[in-house]
Amino acid sequence: MKNNVLSFNNVYISDSSAIVGKKEYEGPIGESFDAYEQDEYFGCKSFEEAESEMVRRNLNLLLGKANKNFDDIDIIMGGDLINQCTVSSFAVCGEKVPFLGLYGACSTIIEAIINASVFIDGGFVNTAIGMASSHFCSSERQYRFPLEYGSIRTPTSQHTVTGAGAVLLTKERSEISVKGAVIGRIVDKGITDANNMGAAMACAAVDTIKRFFNNSNMCPEDFDIISTGDLGIEGHSIAREMLNLEGIPIGNNFTDCGMLIYDKKKQDTHSGGSGCGCIASVLCGHFMKMLNKKEIKNILAVGTGALLNPNSVFQQRNIPAIAHAVHISAEV
Amino acid sequence: MKNNVLSFNNVYISDSSAIVGKKEYEGPIGESFDAYEQDEYFGCKSFEEAESEMVRRNLNLLLGKANKNFDDIDIIMGGDLINQCTVSSFAVCGEKVPFLGLYGACSTIIEAIINASVFIDGGFVNTAIGMASSHFCSSERQYRFPLEYGSIRTPTSQHTVTGAGAVLLTKERSEISVKGAVIGRIVDKGITDANNMGAAMACAAVDTIKRFFNNSNMCPEDFDIISTGDLGIEGHSIAREMLNLEGIPIGNNFTDCGMLIYDKKKQDTHSGGSGCGCIASVLCGHFMKMLNKKEIKNILAVGTGALLNPNSVFQQRNIPAIAHAVHISAEV
Repeated sequence: MKNNVLSFNNVYISDSSAIVGKKEYEGPIGESFDAYEQDEYFGCKSFEEAESEMVRRNLNLLLGKANKNFDDIDIIMGGDLINQCTVSSFAVCGEKVPFLGLYGACSTIIEAIINASVFIDGGFVNTAIGMASSHFCSSERQYRFPLEYGSIRTPTSQHTVTGAGAVLLTKERSEISVKGAVIGRIVDKGITDANNMGAAMACAAVDTIKRFFNNSNMCPEDFDIISTGDLGIEGHSIAREMLNLEGIPIGNNFTDCGMLIYDKKKQDTHSGGSGCGCIASVLCGHFMKMLNKKEIKNILAVGTGALLNPNSVFQQRNIPAIAHAVHISAEV
Repeated sequence: MKNNVLSFNNVYISDSSAIVGKKEYEGPIGESFDAYEQDEYFGCKSFEEAESEMVRRNLNLLLGKANKNFDDIDIIMGGDLINQCTVSSFAVCGEKVPFLGLYGACSTIIEAIINASVFIDGGFVNTAIGMASSHFCSSERQYRFPLEYGSIRTPTSQHTVTGAGAVLLTKERSEISVKGAVIGRIVDKGITDANNMGAAMACAAVDTIKRFFNNSNMCPEDFDIISTGDLGIEGHSIAREMLNLEGIPIGNNFTDCGMLIYDKKKQDTHSGGSGCGCIASVLCGHFMKMLNKKEIKNILAVGTGALLNPNSVFQQRNIPAIAHAVHISAEV
């Protein structure tokens, strides 16, 4: 498949679910999420436990919608932004389901959907859950400053989404299928500003979108929506310009989950949303509902991840990025 | 495959490589590694960059042995212990090969081999590299204390291996094949002592080994070696006792990479080696050489990972663990 598009023949998404925090619920697409929680602690003692509790609830919600329980699931794949992906492992701990931890920064839900599709289409499992999450408070503490410092944010900075998304993938036919995917390559264009990750990720998104259209028989107009994960307003405009320069005629169907989830004017979120939970909740909540209602037929979801940690920024290293893309279709 | 064994028909390991640090080279199996480096900085400015440089060198060594270059590789999968897996992403950055980041703590090389085998056996790629690494100095700084503090270690503590391992998996027939695997479940038996991770991981190793033998037509005597990743002396004796209690008749072929890599008496490494690089270097160096020379025919390699971070320990949460197992065979 060298650099090219993976095709899947029998991979379906039977159900999906998304839980978010209060701010995300109050945003323009708040009604499309399955549930939200007022309390940023989700009833727990720490923000990290809160994020695990959010993921746990979301998994139970998914299984409830599917009328299944953990015993019916062959494998769970997913990850998060917290060091050593502990949010995901604590959330799944004790459920006795085989688990593969993935790390693709904010692209993780797409990495999980692709990886699960390979397991299903290859005949290795029948059912798989793909999941990812982020939490504003646990991310702020780990990547930036404790919330109590009240630090001022730069105009290009983004707001980490408190949200979890999950999909149930099966080989049993249903109305929504996973058609194809492109696995990302790590791209480093010399960006070093950790408050402008949209710019770093835009380069990776363009690389992946270009590879998809250059190696498939599809063109941008075949999609109702082509959405990146969390480039934000700044990164989105960079990506659009780069795609045009590359000769990919991208139109009004090109958007970004980080731009959709908050109201820039009313919600003080600067360049938009970010974090694993951004595309995870918007895809598994908002877009999946549109697919289910046949409001859209084809979406190219492009998860975008900035591959940094606070230490690599202190050490003045560049911010490489990666983008994984998946084609999800409601066409029978 | 619910809780059971995955079987592979056409997955081969054509080449493998392992690079270690000075201490690992001076250990009992030091001669079996492909290369070692005297300088713990690997010529770089920081320990984190050093670890990336070690991984980069090891990938080049692997490709050199295989007489291939990055253009011949369909996908690279792997990870490390450093926050947000930045060691692996910086090492691969710029190579233009699709990359999937994995996180299975110290079990990551086995997770990578299993995941790559699914991609190959499912017909999605022809060639894949699985890799993992750890570095004593970058791990000490991140998980424990800066080296300069000279902190005293407890008797059950382990020494993080400076080492990187990688394998080249192909669908083209070669003498060594990947026959089967068990994907781990997250096990939490209430262990909270971060200086006794062997005990936490022993429970996960036993769960996985038991599932392998209860769901395959093989028994422990069919293997020349059954080796866990980094239980260390303490964890190994716990695992052996638990397996006997579970009715799995494990014999002298049961060992642990963390016990093999250092000389306990001469090298002051307490309970043994640990880290992603432990089983990665011992499997890709020592065991693969034994398979190539037909000194052994069948090995069950059981990667073991403790799913903690320093913060989860401060918050007094338990230490869950996971173990992934892969059956590698030199039988034609």
